Amino acid sequence: MYDIIIIGAGPAGITAAIYAARRKLNFLVLSLDIGGQMSWSSDVDNYPGLPDLPGVDVVEKFQKHMKDYNIKVKQEEVINVQKKLRTFVVKTKKFSYEAKTVLIASGKKPKKLNVPGEEEFLGKGVNYCATCDAPLQKNKILAVIGGGNSALDAANFLSKYAKKIYLLDVNSKLGGEPVLRDKVLKNKKITHIPGVKVLEIIGEKFVNSLKYIQNNQNKILKLEGVFIEVGLVSKADFIKLVKKNKWGEIMIFRSTKSHEENLTSVPGIFAAGDITDIPAKQIAAAVGEGCKAALAIFDYLNKYKLS
Amino acid sequence: MYDIIIIGAGPAGITAAIYAARRKLNFLVLSLDIGGQMSWSSDVDNYPGLPDLPGVDVVEKFQKHMKDYNIKVKQEEVINVQKKLRTFVVKTKKFSYEAKTVLIASGKKPKKLNVPGEEEFLGKGVNYCATCDAPLQKNKILAVIGGGNSALDAANFLSKYAKKIYLLDVNSKLGGEPVLRDKVLKNKKITHIPGVKVLEIIGEKFVNSLKYIQNNQNKILKLEGVFIEVGLVSKADFIKLVKKNKWGEIMIFRSTKSHEENLTSVPGIFAAGDITDIPAKQIAAAVGEGCKAALAIFDYLNKYKLS
Repeated sequence: MYDIIIIGAGPAGITAAIYAARRKLNFLVLSLDIGGQMSWSSDVDNYPGLPDLPGVDVVEKFQKHMKDYNIKVKQEEVINVQKKLRTFVVKTKKFSYEAKTVLIASGKKPKKLNVPGEEEFLGKGVNYCATCDAPLQKNKILAVIGGGNSALDAANFLSKYAKKIYLLDVNSKLGGEPVLRDKVLKNKKITHIPGVKVLEIIGEKFVNSLKYIQNNQNKILKLEGVFIEVGLVSKADFIKLVKKNKWGEIMIFRSTKSHEENLTSVPGIFAAGDITDIPAKQIAAAVGEGCKAALAIFDYLNKYKLS
Repeated sequence: MYDIIIIGAGPAGITAAIYAARRKLNFLVLSLDIGGQMSWSSDVDNYPGLPDLPGVDVVEKFQKHMKDYNIKVKQEEVINVQKKLRTFVVKTKKFSYEAKTVLIASGKKPKKLNVPGEEEFLGKGVNYCATCDAPLQKNKILAVIGGGNSALDAANFLSKYAKKIYLLDVNSKLGGEPVLRDKVLKNKKITHIPGVKVLEIIGEKFVNSLKYIQNNQNKILKLEGVFIEVGLVSKADFIKLVKKNKWGEIMIFRSTKSHEENLTSVPGIFAAGDITDIPAKQIAAAVGEGCKAALAIFDYLNKYKLS
C-alpha cells in the first residue's frame, strides 16, 4: 500500500516526487515518458536558475535530481483510477497498485496536425509552444497554424521577435476573442490567410517551406519556422472520478488550508500542473504546483492519520 | 511610468522579473537584498534541476539568469505604496516611482533570538529552516528553540534524521496544535525542556554547545546544531492598502481567470511568494507563484488596455 501514487513525470510530477522522497513517504511514480512537454521545447529560458537550455537538457537535470533521491519511474500507462472504501486502485496496462492518495500530474500534449514532415522536422523548425520558443525566432519568417485564441496569441507574441508571420487559419473567418483578433488584424507583421488546409511541411535539414490548399488551389509558402497551435489535449482520459472543466482539465481547490491545496473534487485525489485548471501553463508554475500538492498530501495523510 | 514595479528579489520576485522581461514589459525591481530567504539555507536540495547546492549558489544562478535578461535590481528600501486614480506610487527612502501595477514579493525573514553567537554561527550550526536543512542533520544532536507549531513541526521533521533533539521551549507548557504536540511527546528522540531562556550559542569553528537558563539555573547543553524556530516576520509593513491575515500575510485570489491570479484586495496590486497566504513556503512554490503573478499582470494590463 503506497502513501501516494504520482501519475506523470513532467515538472509537476517530478517535483512532487522529490518532495515525497524528502518527506520519506512510500510512493510510486507511473509515467510513460519523463519530462513531459519540457522535452518538446527547443529552448527553455524561463525556468529560473537554468537559463537558456534545450528542453531535453532541463529534463536531464530534473532526472539527475530524481536519481539523487533514488526515485524510479515505472514506465507503465495508467488506464484507470478506481476508488475503494478508503483507498484508490490505479490500474496500468500491466498491473494494479493501491494507494492512500493519488496525485495526477499527467499534463497535456499538443494536438498534432498529422501531415507529412511534421514528425520529421520536430525541433528543426516545427514547434508547438510560442511562449517557449519565441525569443529564438528573431527576424525569421514563420507560419502559425491554427484559428483559436492560442494561435492568435502565438502570432501576436511571435511578432515581437519574427520578421513576418503567416497566420494559416484553419477556419474561413478569424475566430478567437475580439481583443486578440483586433491585435492580429492591426499587426503589420501578421498576414492572415483564412480557410487553409495544410498539406505538407517541407525542408532539408531544417524546415524551408509549407504546402497548403486554399480555395481549391495548392500553394507553397517559403518560411523558416512553423508553429502548430491547433490546441492541446488533456491527458486525463484514464480518470473519470474527478470533476473536469470543458477542456478536460481537472478542477482543483486552491486553499489557505495546507491539506486542501490542489485537492480535486474527490478527497484523496490531488492534481498539479498543466492537467489542472490553473491558467499558467509553464514549467515554473508546474514545479510550484507539484511542490504545493506534495506538501498538501503530506498534511492530508497526517490530518486523517493515514500515514 | 512603469508597467510593473516588483518589490522584492527572492525567488518569486526574480521569476516575475524574468517573465516581465520576456514579455517586454517596462518594469522596475526594488529590493535591498537579492535571493531572500534562499541565502539563509546551508543546502537547497528541493528546487528541481539544481540539486544539493548551498543557498548562496542557487541565488548566484538566479542572479545570472536575471543578468542574461539585463534585469537590474535597485537596492532601495520601499517605505510606502500609495494609490492614485489609476496608478500607484511606490516610495523608497530615496525616490518615488509610479506604475500601472505593483507586485509585492517581499517575503519573510526569520525572527531572531538576539543572543550572542547567533549571528556568528549562522550557517555554521545555526539554522532557521528545518525543512531546508533537515537531511544534513543525520545522527546529530540538535536543539530546536521555540514553542509554537513551527518549532514542533521542526522537531518532528528533524527527528527523522537527527540522533537526538532538545526542544528548548520558550513557554512553560508545550503549546501548538494537539496533533503535533502528541507526536512530539511520543517521539523518543525528542526531549522537551520547558520554560527556557536561551543565553548564548557557543562554538569554535562550528556550534558545539548552548547556554540557557531554566528555573533560575544556568545550564549548558552539548550539541551539534541549533534550529531557531521562534517564527517568521512578514516583510509587508510598508503597505497598508491590501488585506492581510493575522500573520501579516497578504491575502491573494486564486482564480481560473488568468488576469485575477495572485491579485490582492486592491485591483492592480498583486502578490506572490512567502508574503502571501499560500501554505507552501518553499522556493519551488515561490517560483511558481512569481510566474503565475507575472502572467496575471500581463493579462491584466491587456484586459484593461493599460499596456
